[in-house]
Amino acid sequence: MTNAAEVVSIDFAKAGGMVAGIVQDVKSDEVLMLGFLNEESYRRTIETGFVTFWSRTRAKLWMKGETSGNRLRVISASTDCDNDALLFRVEVEGDGLVCHEGTVSCFTKPIEIGSK
Amino acid sequence: MTNAAEVVSIDFAKAGGMVAGIVQDVKSDEVLMLGFLNEESYRRTIETGFVTFWSRTRAKLWMKGETSGNRLRVISASTDCDNDALLFRVEVEGDGLVCHEGTVSCFTKPIEIGSK
Repeated sequence: MTNAAEVVSIDFAKAGGMVAGIVQDVKSDEVLMLGFLNEESYRRTIETGFVTFWSRTRAKLWMKGETSGNRLRVISASTDCDNDALLFRVEVEGDGLVCHEGTVSCFTKPIEIGSK
Repeated sequence: MTNAAEVVSIDFAKAGGMVAGIVQDVKSDEVLMLGFLNEESYRRTIETGFVTFWSRTRAKLWMKGETSGNRLRVISASTDCDNDALLFRVEVEGDGLVCHEGTVSCFTKPIEIGSK
């Protein structure tokens, strides 16, 4: 059963009804992607056990991988000290390529740090 | 030297001038916290090599750990396929307790997933 108290504890009001959700592979610990969740997508994620974002560009609910087959099965989830960010530790279904560009993780572009 | 092309490639316009920045421990792979960066804090992060957020609640630049001693030294950084999120892999200085509540990670509150 979903615990209603936990559903409503997230601080959606802080930033226009959305919080950031980090997706991390539960086995490799690799950070796979980041998306945003509004209250409804958060509730769907908890109910279904699959990460469901709110697509800011398309303005609709988006169960990640629903069409590609690479759904993100939530193994564990947590929020932070301010209740304004989410961390989902997941198993990726399908071929495991989370990014629509065909890579395991969306974080593929290195940024050079100037002080090095 | 900072590469200006990489500085400006981040899509700050998408969400009101800010992007989410994930902080991950480079050794343990633990996700430590999430904050937001505007263009100036991003530039400072690249220039100094220490994660510098834009504090939404205080509306000012915030080099994480500057007062506590737990600065986040960036070992590597990347952006994602949409250029609208950042991942910093860091070494934590000081006692390594990133969260102001005295824990290594800010993500300490479990959320129950209903389908389990």
